[in-house]
Amino acid sequence: MMNTFRLRKSRKKKFRESLYTDISLGLTCEAIVPEFRTPFGQKLALYRHDKLGHILVLDGNIQWMEKDEAIYHETMAHWPMHSVAEPQRVLIVGGGDLGVARELVKYPMLEEIDVVDIDPCVREVTLMYVPHIAGHAATDPRVNKYDVDAARFIKEAVSSHYDIVVLDTTDEVNVATPLFGEKFQSEVYRVLTKGGVMVRVAGSVFLQEDEVKKTLELVRSIFSRISTGMLTLPTMMYLGCFFGIVVAVKEGIWSSIPTRRISVSGLLPLSWYDARWHAFVAERPPYIQKTFFS
Amino acid sequence: MMNTFRLRKSRKKKFRESLYTDISLGLTCEAIVPEFRTPFGQKLALYRHDKLGHILVLDGNIQWMEKDEAIYHETMAHWPMHSVAEPQRVLIVGGGDLGVARELVKYPMLEEIDVVDIDPCVREVTLMYVPHIAGHAATDPRVNKYDVDAARFIKEAVSSHYDIVVLDTTDEVNVATPLFGEKFQSEVYRVLTKGGVMVRVAGSVFLQEDEVKKTLELVRSIFSRISTGMLTLPTMMYLGCFFGIVVAVKEGIWSSIPTRRISVSGLLPLSWYDARWHAFVAERPPYIQKTFFS
Repeated sequence: MMNTFRLRKSRKKKFRESLYTDISLGLTCEAIVPEFRTPFGQKLALYRHDKLGHILVLDGNIQWMEKDEAIYHETMAHWPMHSVAEPQRVLIVGGGDLGVARELVKYPMLEEIDVVDIDPCVREVTLMYVPHIAGHAATDPRVNKYDVDAARFIKEAVSSHYDIVVLDTTDEVNVATPLFGEKFQSEVYRVLTKGGVMVRVAGSVFLQEDEVKKTLELVRSIFSRISTGMLTLPTMMYLGCFFGIVVAVKEGIWSSIPTRRISVSGLLPLSWYDARWHAFVAERPPYIQKTFFS
Repeated sequence: MMNTFRLRKSRKKKFRESLYTDISLGLTCEAIVPEFRTPFGQKLALYRHDKLGHILVLDGNIQWMEKDEAIYHETMAHWPMHSVAEPQRVLIVGGGDLGVARELVKYPMLEEIDVVDIDPCVREVTLMYVPHIAGHAATDPRVNKYDVDAARFIKEAVSSHYDIVVLDTTDEVNVATPLFGEKFQSEVYRVLTKGGVMVRVAGSVFLQEDEVKKTLELVRSIFSRISTGMLTLPTMMYLGCFFGIVVAVKEGIWSSIPTRRISVSGLLPLSWYDARWHAFVAERPPYIQKTFFS
């Protein structure tokens, strides 16, 4: 499959994100891997921008950009890791680029990191052109890469097995559609240990208010109100700046206090994450409180 | 002058921000006030976008958008107000839209709020079409509106007069150019009281690193290293998400601890500002520390 991604000489061209009809981000960049349709039905492209570095695009939507991908990947990994007492096993749904796994392998306490992404092309392109996105996760023996449908994978998974589930998915389009319903959310709940934590992408709190509310309601209906909350990550790579991440605890209390000291020495290098960031992203400034929790 | 701004029937059109050659934000919106050149040399336009509300544009660059203008205006007003013991007088350079003044009039302790913007068209357009941006600042007798060149105004101002100076300017273009040099910065220092605080726009910490560093160095050269710091505001309205605001104290110690309780009842309604926000925007996550303070 690798030859699909071969480098083509390419002049600078304009990429335009297509998630919204009335708001667009236009980036003049080099097409490292020009857009192509993978055998799994996703349109994939990899660009390089002078200021923003490499940019991975799926179905016209930016998945990460090198300049600030750490904000998202570090939060998606370290937030749940510091919200569970003794985590040992993690399931990442999506996350084929291994960005979240890269952060998780920094923890010696973890024994098993299962990455389930239907489309291996995401991993292969990333590893080939921007290997530091995956870092040590590319070779760490605790990282198991399953190139299968996550809906089927989770149905066959053992109950109360994972301490953490990270839903690192694209938006509700194409292959990702089955990962947004009640059935899938119930399976996530089932495979979590008691006290286990789930984080899942919900959308921009400014531009996708309805999607965020819908995800929050779905998660609440299964996890209960008290154990459900939201992280708001400010990022440059997603239009709308503040990106909502719904977080939930199975049979436990949602809290923004880290379960243990966020060790700096063991986790280096970190670009954004520290104890203050951990608390801040879980805060509810008046706008967030009013829009999503009133 | 008012008839310059008369409403023209207009179909939805595409506005594209022109600050960067290789990154652009495209917004399909209605031109409430189509772009025109003011008598003071600025190109001014006012748009309305379905998701983002009204958007004020000067020289092709977004100044504020209704959806999240509060992040910027609240921080520019409340951060310095909670960093000075007993503030009485404030100077706002630029800020013709009165957004910062709107937040300041919420404090009964303030006696004088001088707004010095060379271009009254900004105020007139804003007051006419989006009056809630100015709020009570439009009529509060403590707000003095000076439609003059700020460089000349400050040269004639009395030393040690203002407890707070807010440099709420556009980028270093056209009429704003004289506000970016050492001479102007020295005048700002001079007019501040001992322990007085200045905040000034510095640019995106991702896309304008050099501009931010340059502003930080300039301010440090006049205020000294220990009393100079930076706020990083995540906003949607400025491309680049994290927007750097350089902050400095005259003959005092820079601190992120509020000088008094951030009263909720007295300041309502607030969209973003609270005690945690006050502390958070002054934090230095590893990326900020490494890029600007190492």
